[in-house]
Amino acid sequence: MFTSSIRPIRSENGRILVLDQRKLPHSVEYFDATRLDDMCFAIKEMVVRGAPAIGVAAALALACEGQRLSSARVSPLEFLSQLEKAKGKLEATRPTAVNLRWGAQLIFKLAQDNLSETLDVLAARLVDCARGLIEEDIAINLQIGERGAKLIGDASSVLTHCNAGALATCGWGTALGVIRSAVKLGAHMTVYVDETRPRQQGARLTAWELLEDNIQPTVIADSVAGYLMSKKMVDVVIVGADRITLNGDTANKIGTYTLAVLANVHNVPFYVAAPLSTIDAETLTGKDIPIEERDPHEVTSIGGMEICPEGVNVLNPAFDVTPGRLISAIITEVGIFRPPYEVAIQEALNQIPGVNAGVCPH
Amino acid sequence: MFTSSIRPIRSENGRILVLDQRKLPHSVEYFDATRLDDMCFAIKEMVVRGAPAIGVAAALALACEGQRLSSARVSPLEFLSQLEKAKGKLEATRPTAVNLRWGAQLIFKLAQDNLSETLDVLAARLVDCARGLIEEDIAINLQIGERGAKLIGDASSVLTHCNAGALATCGWGTALGVIRSAVKLGAHMTVYVDETRPRQQGARLTAWELLEDNIQPTVIADSVAGYLMSKKMVDVVIVGADRITLNGDTANKIGTYTLAVLANVHNVPFYVAAPLSTIDAETLTGKDIPIEERDPHEVTSIGGMEICPEGVNVLNPAFDVTPGRLISAIITEVGIFRPPYEVAIQEALNQIPGVNAGVCPH
Repeated sequence: MFTSSIRPIRSENGRILVLDQRKLPHSVEYFDATRLDDMCFAIKEMVVRGAPAIGVAAALALACEGQRLSSARVSPLEFLSQLEKAKGKLEATRPTAVNLRWGAQLIFKLAQDNLSETLDVLAARLVDCARGLIEEDIAINLQIGERGAKLIGDASSVLTHCNAGALATCGWGTALGVIRSAVKLGAHMTVYVDETRPRQQGARLTAWELLEDNIQPTVIADSVAGYLMSKKMVDVVIVGADRITLNGDTANKIGTYTLAVLANVHNVPFYVAAPLSTIDAETLTGKDIPIEERDPHEVTSIGGMEICPEGVNVLNPAFDVTPGRLISAIITEVGIFRPPYEVAIQEALNQIPGVNAGVCPH
Repeated sequence: MFTSSIRPIRSENGRILVLDQRKLPHSVEYFDATRLDDMCFAIKEMVVRGAPAIGVAAALALACEGQRLSSARVSPLEFLSQLEKAKGKLEATRPTAVNLRWGAQLIFKLAQDNLSETLDVLAARLVDCARGLIEEDIAINLQIGERGAKLIGDASSVLTHCNAGALATCGWGTALGVIRSAVKLGAHMTVYVDETRPRQQGARLTAWELLEDNIQPTVIADSVAGYLMSKKMVDVVIVGADRITLNGDTANKIGTYTLAVLANVHNVPFYVAAPLSTIDAETLTGKDIPIEERDPHEVTSIGGMEICPEGVNVLNPAFDVTPGRLISAIITEVGIFRPPYEVAIQEALNQIPGVNAGVCPH
C-alpha cells in the first residue's frame, strides 16, 4: 500500500486543523478550524479547498458542532435544530462542489437517525464517523490511483489543471493520485501543470506537492496547453471534479472545459478522476450546476499586489462545466466509467446507496 | 479622422523615447533608447513591444546608428558594414515578430541603395524615413480600424488577447484599433480582455489604454474564454499578429491558438488585424516560424514575487501559431482577406512591393 505524507486535514485532541493553502508553497502552517465560524471562513477563503477535502472538512465541522451542543446540554430537538442551522452555514460557503453538501448531509442524517441515543453518545458517534472519513478518503484515492494508473501508465506526458492532489483531498489525491500511483508503479512521464489563474493552485499547490514526492512538475501558463497539444506534447489530460451530474457533465476549476475542447480536437484522452461522493444524484445535467463567482480581486491582484489599472470590470467564475461527451472516462474508486455515463453512474449509485444517502460508510 | 493620444514611440531632438511598458499601468514613464544597446535592451526586455511597434523602433534605432556613424566620419563601406552589424543586433533581440526584420531591413536597404550620397545627407534621409514610419503606422492602423469596424460593429461583445493596441504600434492599434474605431463609430460592446499570462499585457496594458479612451474593459483570466463562448457571451474574437506567412498561418501571443480553436468549435468569428508589414513574404507556412522561448521567471514570479516552489521546471513559449483555416478573416490596411489566404496575400504583396522590399514608403 502506498502512502502519502501530506495531510491537509487533521483531527486531534478535539481540534480540527487544516493546512493553510493560502500560504503554500512559501510556508507550511496549520489553521485551527475547530470553531464552526472558523471552518466556514476556512472553506470560503480557500484555506482548505478541493471538493473531497471540503466534504470531509464540513463533516468534521458539523460533528464538532454536535459535540459543542452536547456539552451545552441542549435538548435533542434543539440539538438537531442547531445542527441543521450549522449545516446550512457550511453548505452556503461554496455553491459548486457537491461534496460539501455530501459531508454535511452525512453527519446530519446520522444525527437525525439516532436521536434516540443520549446526546453525548450521539455526538461521539458523529465525531467517529467524521474522523473515519479522513482515512476512508485516502483509501478511496488509492483505489482511484490504482485504477487510473492502468489507464495512463504508458503515457509519456500528462497535463493537469488546478490541484486535484493530496491537498484537495485528505491525502494522495484524485487526478494527482492517479499520476502518483502511475509514477510509483514505474511510469516515466513529463507532468505539465497549468498555473491555474486566478489563484494559481497549479503553480503553487500542485507543483509543491509533486516536488514533495520527488515528481518533477513542469509549470506552464494556462494558455500554453493548446500549443503543447498542437505539438503532440501531451498524451493525456487528467483533472479532478467538483460536481458530476447523472449524465457525466462535470464542473471543475475554470479552464477545464477549454482543456477538454482542446483535447477533443487533438485526439488526446481527457480523464476525470473523482470519488463517488462527487456525483450529484439529484442533478441530471451540468446546466443545473450553480457556478460560483468569486471576488474580482483574485484577478486584479496577486499576493496583495495590484496588476490591473483601477476601474476595470472583472468576470471571475471559479468553475466551468465540461459536457460528458468530451470526457473519455471518469475514474472512480469502484470502476472506470465510459460514456454514455448515465448507465454506469446509476449502477454505481444503486450498488452503493450510502454514498448519497447519509449512511456512515464505516 | 480619429486620433489617439497614446504615443509609445517618440523621436525628438535626436533622441528615441519609448513608453516603458514594464511600468504600466502603475506609472507612465519614457525610456531613452537612443543608444543602440539601449534599444536592443528595450526590445528584448519588452520595454517596447508589439510587432508593429518594434518594427518602427528598429528602424529608428538603425537610422540613429547611421547618424552616429556619419558623425564619426567613417568611410562609406565602414558605414554600411557597421550598419549591417547593428541590424543583426536588432534582429537578434526577438525572433518571432517579422516586423522587426522589416523595419531594420527597410533602413538598411535605403542606405545600401544610396551609398553614393554623402554620409550626412544619407544619414538624414534614413532618419527622415524612420521618423515617417511613426505617422505612417498610425495612418495604417486607422485604415485597419475603419475596415475592421465594418466587420465587428454589430457585435455586442468582443474578446481580445494580449495587447494589439496603441501600445503595440505607434498609436491607435491593430485589433484594439478595430475596437476603438467601432466604438467611435457608435458601437456598444462588452470588451473582454484576456489577462495574458505570463506578462499580463491584457490586464496591464490593454485594460489601461482602453480606460484611457473611456472604453470599459472586462478583464478575465485566460482560462475563462471557453466558458464565455459556451455561454454564447462572445460574438467576435479579434487579435493582432507577430508574423503571418503566405498561407495565412499566424504567429501571435501564446494562447491565441487556443482561442482560435474555441472560436471555431463555438462558431464565433475569429479575426486577425495586422499591417502588411507583418506578412513574411519569405515563409510559406507557420511551421517555419521560430517560436521564442522566454525566461522561466516570467512564469514563476510576478512583479518580483515568487509564486512557484523552488525547483520547478517551466516551459515558456511566448507565441503560438494559428493555422489560417481557423482564421475567419485577416484585416489589413489594404483590404480584408478571406481564406484561402494564399491568393489575397500574394496579390497584396504584388501591388505594394515596397512593403517587403525595403523601399521607404514616403
